[in-house]
Amino acid sequence: MTDRYASFVRSGAGRALVKRLGLPDPPRLRRHTPGEPLLPGPALLGAAGGSRLAVQVGRILLDAGVELRDTPASSTPDPTTGRLPGNGALVYDATGITDSTGLRQLYDFFHPQARSVLPSGRVIVLGTPPAGCGSPREATAQRSLEGLVRSIGKEFGRGVTAQLVYVTPDGDAGTATSLEATLRFLLSGRSAYVSGQVVRVGTGTATAPADWNRPLAGQVVLVTGAARGIGAAVARVLSRDGAQVVALDVPAAGDALAAVVNEIGGTAVQLDLTGADAPARLADHLADRHGRVDVVVHNAGITRDRTLGRMDADRWDAVLDVNLSSQERINDVLLERELIPAGGRLVAVSSIAGIAGNRGQTNYATSKAGVIGLVDALAPALAGRGISVNAVAPGFIETRLTARVPLVIREAGRRMNSMAQGGLPVDVAETIGWLAWPASGAVSGNVVRVCGQSLLGA
Amino acid sequence: MTDRYASFVRSGAGRALVKRLGLPDPPRLRRHTPGEPLLPGPALLGAAGGSRLAVQVGRILLDAGVELRDTPASSTPDPTTGRLPGNGALVYDATGITDSTGLRQLYDFFHPQARSVLPSGRVIVLGTPPAGCGSPREATAQRSLEGLVRSIGKEFGRGVTAQLVYVTPDGDAGTATSLEATLRFLLSGRSAYVSGQVVRVGTGTATAPADWNRPLAGQVVLVTGAARGIGAAVARVLSRDGAQVVALDVPAAGDALAAVVNEIGGTAVQLDLTGADAPARLADHLADRHGRVDVVVHNAGITRDRTLGRMDADRWDAVLDVNLSSQERINDVLLERELIPAGGRLVAVSSIAGIAGNRGQTNYATSKAGVIGLVDALAPALAGRGISVNAVAPGFIETRLTARVPLVIREAGRRMNSMAQGGLPVDVAETIGWLAWPASGAVSGNVVRVCGQSLLGA
Repeated sequence: MTDRYASFVRSGAGRALVKRLGLPDPPRLRRHTPGEPLLPGPALLGAAGGSRLAVQVGRILLDAGVELRDTPASSTPDPTTGRLPGNGALVYDATGITDSTGLRQLYDFFHPQARSVLPSGRVIVLGTPPAGCGSPREATAQRSLEGLVRSIGKEFGRGVTAQLVYVTPDGDAGTATSLEATLRFLLSGRSAYVSGQVVRVGTGTATAPADWNRPLAGQVVLVTGAARGIGAAVARVLSRDGAQVVALDVPAAGDALAAVVNEIGGTAVQLDLTGADAPARLADHLADRHGRVDVVVHNAGITRDRTLGRMDADRWDAVLDVNLSSQERINDVLLERELIPAGGRLVAVSSIAGIAGNRGQTNYATSKAGVIGLVDALAPALAGRGISVNAVAPGFIETRLTARVPLVIREAGRRMNSMAQGGLPVDVAETIGWLAWPASGAVSGNVVRVCGQSLLGA
Repeated sequence: MTDRYASFVRSGAGRALVKRLGLPDPPRLRRHTPGEPLLPGPALLGAAGGSRLAVQVGRILLDAGVELRDTPASSTPDPTTGRLPGNGALVYDATGITDSTGLRQLYDFFHPQARSVLPSGRVIVLGTPPAGCGSPREATAQRSLEGLVRSIGKEFGRGVTAQLVYVTPDGDAGTATSLEATLRFLLSGRSAYVSGQVVRVGTGTATAPADWNRPLAGQVVLVTGAARGIGAAVARVLSRDGAQVVALDVPAAGDALAAVVNEIGGTAVQLDLTGADAPARLADHLADRHGRVDVVVHNAGITRDRTLGRMDADRWDAVLDVNLSSQERINDVLLERELIPAGGRLVAVSSIAGIAGNRGQTNYATSKAGVIGLVDALAPALAGRGISVNAVAPGFIETRLTARVPLVIREAGRRMNSMAQGGLPVDVAETIGWLAWPASGAVSGNVVRVCGQSLLGA
């Protein structure tokens, strides 16, 4: 669970060696501390001609306490040092680009600023979802943004993340609130290990919190697999953000579960989700104790790796059942009994193995690809009930499980991403938290990778 | 352009060393020779209960001269050797799976056969597009297939490819013909370097050829950037398959272009596509000489690599204009003048850099992501005119350009895929050919990677 290489390269001797040999240089990532400023420096906000979001974005940034720069001021080098002033973030509204020839405006904005972004700074490009564009030319240009953002994520280094946010053209309040929530998440240290992602903000209903430091205040949240690793981190982060956490795990993990629950002041449910009566028992528990569950975080998951020719049927069945089928059974019962109210959130945990496939993980990848299918299918189906459905897809996260991966594979997984390091369970938890916020209601149908922009994909 | 490592590991001394050290072992890939059998051995065809395509698929395979096995016969080991008989392909119709619990049928089919697939054999899973499924449960299960297929592609090795083909439920003749074309392509050596892909067969109009060995007979095909590399290979392959090729390149490449044209008996057009009058001149030429153009292959493309901070505006502009905007201008003129008839095909060349982004290629990745946007936008827009729109996204292809890439990066690009080798220009050309066939009319809106299932993605 410790990244000794990262510790080494941050030492004096390590620094020198890394520079000399051109070794990977994992930066120390900026992570969220409640009450801290959203950015390590001012944000530079730019917009293509005819863009529709810049004013709204500017207001969001100012409300969040971000110091704003506009383009002309900041591209002037400091008269003493001759250097550009450092930017905490570059935010560009590209919604006005309606033709590929207009993409030049991206170059004009980013080229002079490319070296101005501070460590762990942020690059955010806002666009219109190609499917919602008025012409093939506009859709093509808007789709191009993805290539730019993913390249910037790979180029800028030093913990800088780059994201593309597609915002559905709609004056709806849900969109505005969800854009605020999404920008706050993406600018903050909460998204330390999220980069190269495309996030879609649609038109669902969203509710701004009274206090952005407690965005989950009053929410009843169920977290499965909460005794250890990512699940325990989710329980802690969501509790920190104001949620009342119901932490679930199998009876065998009862002690670890109790420790988490005692730490955060939540309640524990010991239950094996694969049992035939588990969904009904869980629903009963939630109905009796809370009368509802606002957020369901389907985190429980297992691996039983073998190549397909050597895999016994039990390994296939167990992984598919825990990671996928049991989620479906629980969703169905909770929805049928109307225990998830309007404003509810389903957040599932997929995996980059579910996106890219993986050797020795036909069972796991099948189950985790299914989770993506579940999001794609349920998000539109539940939109009418005001329930959002999203997933995170973790890449290499430092846990008890990855600590057991053989050294060479572990090092490849750790370094082959734009952050040159593995993520922490808290990084996945913060991302799940954002998707769970009442303020994120118009963020639905997304699968957000928490992978430091891993090279791996499909 | 030569892969010395691959030559070495195929020598006696090389083989021994590779085995001893566990080095990558690039297999010799089976490639297409006209008239050869479609597969290196019999195909085993299986189906989940209630599937709708197996009968049709069986007929297609038999018509194509494939020896068919059904499940019970082939899972019996040879009584003398105790080994399973080798399979040229495993083809599984999974359209009957309507719930994640039904995914077990995949295990039951593939597990006993996992080690039976012959070198350069094929795995094909057929499914229903999740968006067209009748319930969230069915959509989820069908989406799961992607995780299985991508994992099999990474596991099976020895040049075996694995694909998922989503077939829109529709009795339409276009779908049937396009499924036949797609299966013939995917089973054959034409798809040697295509693996881990999801192909969608929809409901457009398709026309079966009189002779499957000349699937482009009588078609007028324009290939841009045809003087060298991938473009020259496209001209050759499409000509071999019966097309009348109009090969275009810039005047400076005139000699190389003439050599290609003389070899294949096509005609040459020397034209700089970035000129303001180029689309009109090209349209005039096609109208005068042929009265139409059935297939347009937008292959012309350039790179001008620099990190964004060091990139001058000319590099940005040139790449965006050649790789993206000029395609749009040409399409618009050809479509406006109705030179592309019903049954027409647009095939563009994107890149995995357009999918994943790339350091030093913000301009290139932006342009190639735009090409994906163009496919997404134009495919539905032109469906009514009977014109299909698709793209290929090459990974590491052995060309004059990649031969100049620094050794370590080149070796990484070559080996980090399921084939442990770079692809050849002919692999891209064969894939473009399939998308160009009159028989592929219901294959539209696809972006097919020709990357040997590269690890790189997004």
